[in-house]
Amino acid sequence: MKALVLAAGEGKRLRESASKGKANSPKPLFPLLGLSLIERTILNLRENGIEEIFVVTGYQGEKIKRSIGDGSRYGVTVSYIDNEQWSLGNGSSVLAAEKVLQNEPCFLLTMADHVMQPSAIKKILNIENIKPGEVHVLVDYKRQKVFRIEEATKVRLNSHGRVLEIGKSLKDYNAVDCGVFLCTPGIFQGLKEEVSEGRNALSDGIRRLAEKGMVKGVDIGEEWWIDVDDGWDLEEARKRLLKSLPSPRDGLISKLINRRLSVPISGFIASTKITPNMISFTNFIVACLSAAAFIKGLWPIGGLLAQSAAIIDGVDGEIARLKYMATKYGAYFDSILDRYGDALILFGMTLGWYLAHSDAWVWFMGCAALIGSPMSMLGKEKFHALTGTPYCPEKYDGFLRFVPANRDGRLFLIMLGSFVGQLPLVLGILAVITNFLAFGRLVMVRKVLCK
Amino acid sequence: MKALVLAAGEGKRLRESASKGKANSPKPLFPLLGLSLIERTILNLRENGIEEIFVVTGYQGEKIKRSIGDGSRYGVTVSYIDNEQWSLGNGSSVLAAEKVLQNEPCFLLTMADHVMQPSAIKKILNIENIKPGEVHVLVDYKRQKVFRIEEATKVRLNSHGRVLEIGKSLKDYNAVDCGVFLCTPGIFQGLKEEVSEGRNALSDGIRRLAEKGMVKGVDIGEEWWIDVDDGWDLEEARKRLLKSLPSPRDGLISKLINRRLSVPISGFIASTKITPNMISFTNFIVACLSAAAFIKGLWPIGGLLAQSAAIIDGVDGEIARLKYMATKYGAYFDSILDRYGDALILFGMTLGWYLAHSDAWVWFMGCAALIGSPMSMLGKEKFHALTGTPYCPEKYDGFLRFVPANRDGRLFLIMLGSFVGQLPLVLGILAVITNFLAFGRLVMVRKVLCK
Repeated sequence: MKALVLAAGEGKRLRESASKGKANSPKPLFPLLGLSLIERTILNLRENGIEEIFVVTGYQGEKIKRSIGDGSRYGVTVSYIDNEQWSLGNGSSVLAAEKVLQNEPCFLLTMADHVMQPSAIKKILNIENIKPGEVHVLVDYKRQKVFRIEEATKVRLNSHGRVLEIGKSLKDYNAVDCGVFLCTPGIFQGLKEEVSEGRNALSDGIRRLAEKGMVKGVDIGEEWWIDVDDGWDLEEARKRLLKSLPSPRDGLISKLINRRLSVPISGFIASTKITPNMISFTNFIVACLSAAAFIKGLWPIGGLLAQSAAIIDGVDGEIARLKYMATKYGAYFDSILDRYGDALILFGMTLGWYLAHSDAWVWFMGCAALIGSPMSMLGKEKFHALTGTPYCPEKYDGFLRFVPANRDGRLFLIMLGSFVGQLPLVLGILAVITNFLAFGRLVMVRKVLCK
Repeated sequence: MKALVLAAGEGKRLRESASKGKANSPKPLFPLLGLSLIERTILNLRENGIEEIFVVTGYQGEKIKRSIGDGSRYGVTVSYIDNEQWSLGNGSSVLAAEKVLQNEPCFLLTMADHVMQPSAIKKILNIENIKPGEVHVLVDYKRQKVFRIEEATKVRLNSHGRVLEIGKSLKDYNAVDCGVFLCTPGIFQGLKEEVSEGRNALSDGIRRLAEKGMVKGVDIGEEWWIDVDDGWDLEEARKRLLKSLPSPRDGLISKLINRRLSVPISGFIASTKITPNMISFTNFIVACLSAAAFIKGLWPIGGLLAQSAAIIDGVDGEIARLKYMATKYGAYFDSILDRYGDALILFGMTLGWYLAHSDAWVWFMGCAALIGSPMSMLGKEKFHALTGTPYCPEKYDGFLRFVPANRDGRLFLIMLGSFVGQLPLVLGILAVITNFLAFGRLVMVRKVLCK
């Protein structure tokens, strides 16, 4: 499917509220966590498999073209349509694309300045039966989660999801327009009829079609979206993007401690050129430093560095998700380096204790912890490889899910143990819980994997 | 799809050549590597997704029914059709099934006494366009690989794969009938016409249809098959089943040494009730014994036991494939226990050397080897989980595929080192090659995994 992105507006209010350096940029080029607004829109489309994108430009169009180019950098092709009449209203921008899209059975229409997740756009792309002449519009029924509803375009739908009325000043409404449309060329007809009567907004054209019963609403559900008009909106979009970063499969320590630190770090470095693989490597170096500190006998420092590695371990994935940079190689690189980081920390603890106390027993503890350490990942990856679905601890682990044998739990225990100076005890605890988990899983997954 | 299995014949020649204990069994119940011939046929069908099977019985039909039951043990449903006229010829056995199969658009017909792999039957099930009235027959164009071609039913086909003639005494032929047919109910018509003229063999009915241009050949390609008529055939089937066991992804030591021992062991224990999981567990116990021997200072014994574990490691998979007992849980169980076996052997070597020489340096070597040991599997499983396809060392490892860092190579090195009494050296070599492989793969898979 092809997509049309409207990027012609001036964005006056955002520019007025911006710092001096950015005040000359058109709104689609305003940065948000390392990507401009229009880059986020284009990458959202790419994530949904859309590879041919038309961008309508108006205000400072040349700047946008220079910034985005032909789209090859994003893995898509971007073509531009100039709309000299952009100041009349966004309906004129859609009409400017009639020539290139009039023969498409169906295309996606979205705004360069609306921020959302790829999964929100997916909701409307899942629609299968769109009839000739119809337009489907993504709507949000949960009005309480709409940021600054007074600015939004309101929609009244009947119980079958058919749009009855649409408009900014609508008093009696039950949903809000999210600015994403699945269109047939019928949209051009509706717009032309309105333009001939002097009304140039996209919502005018939609209203015209709605009067004919040709507009349907698609529920955005639990997904969020923000129409960025000024600095407040931009700040809210930033907050929501960061809030969406923690993974639902996080362990307890990750949830309670690590993410609270890794997410702000990600927010800070998103605007730099630091890549996720660089962060994975930094994480490995911090683990090496932790091992070195343990060997030198600096136990609390070793422990703090180990816990720092656990926190940094979240950042690579967060940056990858925030900036659409996730690759399979990144996941591979990260998990192998993590295993080495873990192993080096355990080895450093063992050697450090041995050098300090000449106590050969610590090698038993160290070896047992080293043996157990990769087993959690090994079991999960083997399961994933065999079944094609990721291992879900909540589903399969039973009571074992309370054993803190994942990386977040292991490194947190190491920090605690280093503070009280009981390295062999921590190594022993780690050995018991990681190996217990591995053997326990042999029992737990039996039912699932025996056909 | 439903399947019809002919199991009515007496199998006189096989019974005559058999030992006394078996001479009273009907041919389909003759054992071959732990399963009767008809069990192999039924399990082949199940592997190909066929779950409803009709078996035509004649000679000693009650024994067959008692042995196979309702099929639930094999994960299929088996129903029986008695053919009292079985002694007339196998065409009468097919006709006996007319009542239950006459309304099927298409069904598979095969013989209880033909041995082949599931992949051979798959060749004919892959056929998509079978026309009403037609029969497709699996044929082998590679006559030199047919065992005892003088006994086979010969086929002459034209260059479009249409069968022109078929018969045991055919002189001018270019292929051989493998005894597997994809039939429409047209087969019954052909058989009835022949029976009315006093000819009762299945090949008579097929010839009748071939004269009308209704029979097509499907090439079995490189797959093998054997029609078991006597003890020689049975022995040849046994040899070919065993020969098919080694995996194409075996390492060098596996290929050259381990499989040459594990395959005969599998041939020997296939007829017992020992399951693949019991063998995986035995393998683990042998690894524990190896570790114990190393700790006791009995190095050559430890080394031999380690190498024994490597050999037994092949047997579980071989028995699983031979007896259709492969499960995902078996693969999971085996790989986790293997990692523990490996780790215990390395730990035993380290501790054994330390106890004998009080040389703390060996712990460095031991820990480094312990860290590297699971990395080969970790990388492969992560790759498999990420891409959905198994990691293929020939394809991705480049020159790294010559590094003996897989289990077969590692355990062989351990045996060699134990013979010359150089445990720290072996631990050091293992540490270098396993960790070198893990980091080398970080480089090699980059191109494949970066999108």
